[in-house]
Amino acid sequence: MSDLAHIGHVELLTPKPEESLAFFRDVLGMEEEAHEGQSVFLRGWGDYQRYSLKLTESDRAGLEHTALRAWSPEALERRVAEVEAAGLGLGWIDGDLGHGPAYRCADPDGHVLELYYDTERYSPPEGLRPALKNQPQRYLPRGAAVKRLDHVNLLAADVAAARQFAQQQLGYRLYEQVILDDGTEAGAWLSLTIAAHELIYVRDAYGVRGRLHHLAFWVDTREEVLRAADVFVDAYVPIEAAPSKHAVAQGFFLYGFEPGGNRIEVTTGGYFVYDPDYEPVVWSESERARGQAWGVETVHSFHTYGTPVVPGDEEVVARTPVYGPS
Amino acid sequence: MSDLAHIGHVELLTPKPEESLAFFRDVLGMEEEAHEGQSVFLRGWGDYQRYSLKLTESDRAGLEHTALRAWSPEALERRVAEVEAAGLGLGWIDGDLGHGPAYRCADPDGHVLELYYDTERYSPPEGLRPALKNQPQRYLPRGAAVKRLDHVNLLAADVAAARQFAQQQLGYRLYEQVILDDGTEAGAWLSLTIAAHELIYVRDAYGVRGRLHHLAFWVDTREEVLRAADVFVDAYVPIEAAPSKHAVAQGFFLYGFEPGGNRIEVTTGGYFVYDPDYEPVVWSESERARGQAWGVETVHSFHTYGTPVVPGDEEVVARTPVYGPS
Amino acid sequence: MSDLAHIGHVELLTPKPEESLAFFRDVLGMEEEAHEGQSVFLRGWGDYQRYSLKLTESDRAGLEHTALRAWSPEALERRVAEVEAAGLGLGWIDGDLGHGPAYRCADPDGHVLELYYDTERYSPPEGLRPALKNQPQRYLPRGAAVKRLDHVNLLAADVAAARQFAQQQLGYRLYEQVILDDGTEAGAWLSLTIAAHELIYVRDAYGVRGRLHHLAFWVDTREEVLRAADVFVDAYVPIEAAPSKHAVAQGFFLYGFEPGGNRIEVTTGGYFVYDPDYEPVVWSESERARGQAWGVETVHSFHTYGTPVVPGDEEVVARTPVYGPS
Amino acid sequence: MSDLAHIGHVELLTPKPEESLAFFRDVLGMEEEAHEGQSVFLRGWGDYQRYSLKLTESDRAGLEHTALRAWSPEALERRVAEVEAAGLGLGWIDGDLGHGPAYRCADPDGHVLELYYDTERYSPPEGLRPALKNQPQRYLPRGAAVKRLDHVNLLAADVAAARQFAQQQLGYRLYEQVILDDGTEAGAWLSLTIAAHELIYVRDAYGVRGRLHHLAFWVDTREEVLRAADVFVDAYVPIEAAPSKHAVAQGFFLYGFEPGGNRIEVTTGGYFVYDPDYEPVVWSESERARGQAWGVETVHSFHTYGTPVVPGDEEVVARTPVYGPS
Repeated sequence: MSDLAHIGHVELLTPKPEESLAFFRDVLGMEEEAHEGQSVFLRGWGDYQRYSLKLTESDRAGLEHTALRAWSPEALERRVAEVEAAGLGLGWIDGDLGHGPAYRCADPDGHVLELYYDTERYSPPEGLRPALKNQPQRYLPRGAAVKRLDHVNLLAADVAAARQFAQQQLGYRLYEQVILDDGTEAGAWLSLTIAAHELIYVRDAYGVRGRLHHLAFWVDTREEVLRAADVFVDAYVPIEAAPSKHAVAQGFFLYGFEPGGNRIEVTTGGYFVYDPDYEPVVWSESERARGQAWGVETVHSFHTYGTPVVPGDEEVVARTPVYGPS
Repeated sequence: MSDLAHIGHVELLTPKPEESLAFFRDVLGMEEEAHEGQSVFLRGWGDYQRYSLKLTESDRAGLEHTALRAWSPEALERRVAEVEAAGLGLGWIDGDLGHGPAYRCADPDGHVLELYYDTERYSPPEGLRPALKNQPQRYLPRGAAVKRLDHVNLLAADVAAARQFAQQQLGYRLYEQVILDDGTEAGAWLSLTIAAHELIYVRDAYGVRGRLHHLAFWVDTREEVLRAADVFVDAYVPIEAAPSKHAVAQGFFLYGFEPGGNRIEVTTGGYFVYDPDYEPVVWSESERARGQAWGVETVHSFHTYGTPVVPGDEEVVARTPVYGPS
Repeated sequence: MSDLAHIGHVELLTPKPEESLAFFRDVLGMEEEAHEGQSVFLRGWGDYQRYSLKLTESDRAGLEHTALRAWSPEALERRVAEVEAAGLGLGWIDGDLGHGPAYRCADPDGHVLELYYDTERYSPPEGLRPALKNQPQRYLPRGAAVKRLDHVNLLAADVAAARQFAQQQLGYRLYEQVILDDGTEAGAWLSLTIAAHELIYVRDAYGVRGRLHHLAFWVDTREEVLRAADVFVDAYVPIEAAPSKHAVAQGFFLYGFEPGGNRIEVTTGGYFVYDPDYEPVVWSESERARGQAWGVETVHSFHTYGTPVVPGDEEVVARTPVYGPS
Repeated sequence: MSDLAHIGHVELLTPKPEESLAFFRDVLGMEEEAHEGQSVFLRGWGDYQRYSLKLTESDRAGLEHTALRAWSPEALERRVAEVEAAGLGLGWIDGDLGHGPAYRCADPDGHVLELYYDTERYSPPEGLRPALKNQPQRYLPRGAAVKRLDHVNLLAADVAAARQFAQQQLGYRLYEQVILDDGTEAGAWLSLTIAAHELIYVRDAYGVRGRLHHLAFWVDTREEVLRAADVFVDAYVPIEAAPSKHAVAQGFFLYGFEPGGNRIEVTTGGYFVYDPDYEPVVWSESERARGQAWGVETVHSFHTYGTPVVPGDEEVVARTPVYGPS
């Protein structure tokens, strides 16, 4: 098993910081935990650390980094050594709000990762304390009321290289895969736990390196995903893909674009992998082309759009239907 | 069929107007449509009229009146004549915020009813306009987010007399009934439509006249009722009966007390009565004693407590468990 | 209000009687109540009459007739007189299994209707008796476990004429409508009750008369619709439209084809119309083109295919993706 | 992290083998995978091994053994060595239908455990093959349609001793705990993964050793738990606790008794533990006395009854209300 426990948080970039903040706070229902410089730190009501999303103003959309928490100081050291040996290390930083020293590195596709162990657990202020003591914060019935950051989907020019790095240097397990007819790898679904996916690599249609496909936030039920779609509609959020069930990993999804242009998923469902010898499920090109689990055809932009936005895709979000009040 | 269409609104009394308002607005998620004198007018996002709840400051809890909308001016006249002939008329009033002239009367148990036809439809301001034009207001993801007032349950010293009045003078249909072993009537579930209940009379355990058992607000799914229980818990709302399924009428329920002491239900489910010759379902004393549909025993206070509160019941709400943050 | 209460049953034609029966029994989970000649009579667990679906072998798919139950013998006579006066009467028949004398007529588009009052209520045999006495039959957890027939959607060459007939001769209320830019009517959603739709007319893309768009069967929750999609997939049922929410009437849907070629919907949701003066919601051509409530584009065949199948559409069902076990 | 991966299966004893089989097959919806001697091997549609439940005829109810699958042959050896060193080993057996050699041992309370690694994956026959290749078997819409065995709850005379064994010898993590005012331990919730509980020890009210509290089977949604309650009711299954939400571990539950007398739960929900340094949540006696998450009082038998049944408890199941057809 892995030395790493889970994705602790991500830093997301947005050229429209106020609109993006309004989206995460009012539409997704996250809580502002802290502000610092050009960044706002946000949390779902079920996140055990202070935040899972650092939202930072920038001139472009995209992901600044993904932070992975290790199981222990020793586990952290082992992983740092692995990554350094692979020539992908970038060096230590002192830490950030809410966590201690972190080792910055990059996957083969250039996505920046931070590995850390020391962290601050969330301590709710009066008014946000939960009724049930096994819950970090009270449930906040605002917007889609997402519980926590669930998974990160990264575009990669070379999926196989990125996936191998995740398996070998980071210790991820591979659960599902898409292999095209020419033998190349179009997607890889990876996890550190029994959850069906926590880190996904999908081929970048433009061959660009280091881009984000989407961030996914968890809700506990499919009904909440359906409800989130109603919330999106009335809040003018462009819906790229209405709620349905993925064939790969069987997650239940809703995809939309936050005002900064980043693709955001509200997700639940999927299955658990209890089998120690689980053989990755491999989907062929034709199987993948069949669409989602109930036959929903995947929209074109889902296969191409990512952030930062590449030339030619500037209008993708603007062309996505918005059904707000007319 | 009936000349009356549905319960248009109720006027609820509360000795704690600010706390009660906070409950309906923040916990149930209703919208304040207007203020006038000692009253606040509130609406669910699916109410087609301006409001369904008039919340009025008073020295005691309870229901001031229940307002029933007629199908037409002529239908209204017919019902007024029926009620007058029965000697239960109280006379016309000029109307109130949001509706025109109304005829006040009382059922045999002394509950005040108002019959009216002229009404104002809701016109949402900027910011509350819906994306879908077949919806009066945008969905507001706040608190339990109730859609509309669903039904009213009145305590009656003489259930049979009240039920007969509802059938004969008002034109309600009787769908379910509880008849005790001694032949007396302990409950009657009545409706003007295919919905399984819209007006309920239940025996007042103290033999007091004119009291309220509960108001019920509708949500579209059972998941929303479960979610409302989480919302209640974190908001310190005393839960009298956790979510489960009624045997009678098969409604899915959650019961709690608003700060003024009135019992409030969040409800969904039930069945539709399409049969023109529907024979009322009669439950015996022993069948009723079996509890709810899945065997949940009915809590004692549910059979006794109502508003206004009678001497001896002052502590019922205070003794109901509250699971807010400790 | 209307003299008619509801659609009591339909007679559906199928060129593949055994496969169709297997679909309704095992996939939808209906119960075989009786067999007679080339027909099987099926019921949902919530139907109060003996059956809601008469499935009859034929050389083609389509609807033989739709049977409407009147509120009383007098109401039936009134409606028969209205229909006869409109020149659309076909005459009385003695009745059929489960119901008494019925008056056959046709709407202006040629769909055969039967108006009747006398009926047999369902009496469950040992093994199908329900635990709750306000339910006609025990819940049968088989397949999608549909509760009852919900609505019928008929294609019409002249929607306006059919809709006016439904309003004037039959007494339906009009709740929603699609009016194209050229002023013609493309769809009408009609109801006898507070339910948002019970009878729908939609324009026949080929201008053919008397065809069926789909039959819809009710389940109580959206979760059951999602579950039905899983059931369809594993049973090789072609899914024309995966679960999502309609903009018009806000029903939650799943559309597939039964083996005989008829389109079948599993449905729930929608809203109730309590307003006596409800103004029909009118959707324009461009509003309709926006797709379903969450932006799902309507599949082409949904606008064209019906039964009996017209030349050129023979391959529609065969081309609809089937995701059964490979 | 642990050398053990998960509970692979359990062997449950029943004095009423035919009725128990009918319960697991028709009410829970499991599939009979094999028969051998006095045993039937059953599986949920999501179990990756051939079975998760071995149901064996016996003169009494209870659990024969719980089988735990190791991550690897080496991991298995390490755990066997630990258990032997603790003096709790019983020795190797050759294996059983569906798995290879297993090491039998007992926890300090006398519950028999089997540790194994070699296993047979499920290979569905024609008719049970799934549409989605990441699922071991097609979804079978029969009864409650449970997906897989989820967790096991064991009664223990000495909870602390059993819990320490699970942590130290087996490698379980402790997530929640009940500590009474006298300092003794009344319950421990343990897991090998991020799932909130997989193995539970609860104090045996009679101080008897080696008894079973309940087996829990997983469904993916709360709606399915509610639906299972309807299925139980119509199938005459005694419901000990209607669907609601636990405070501890936040699981959503339904408890009933199978015909052999063993307590069975249908469960979903709960939370995931991603924190490597998770501090067990400790509930005090008074917190535990508050009942379940929404205030539902825990029924008395839930604190006392287990299998094998002790003298004095023979009537517990018979006294539990059954709501089948009257």
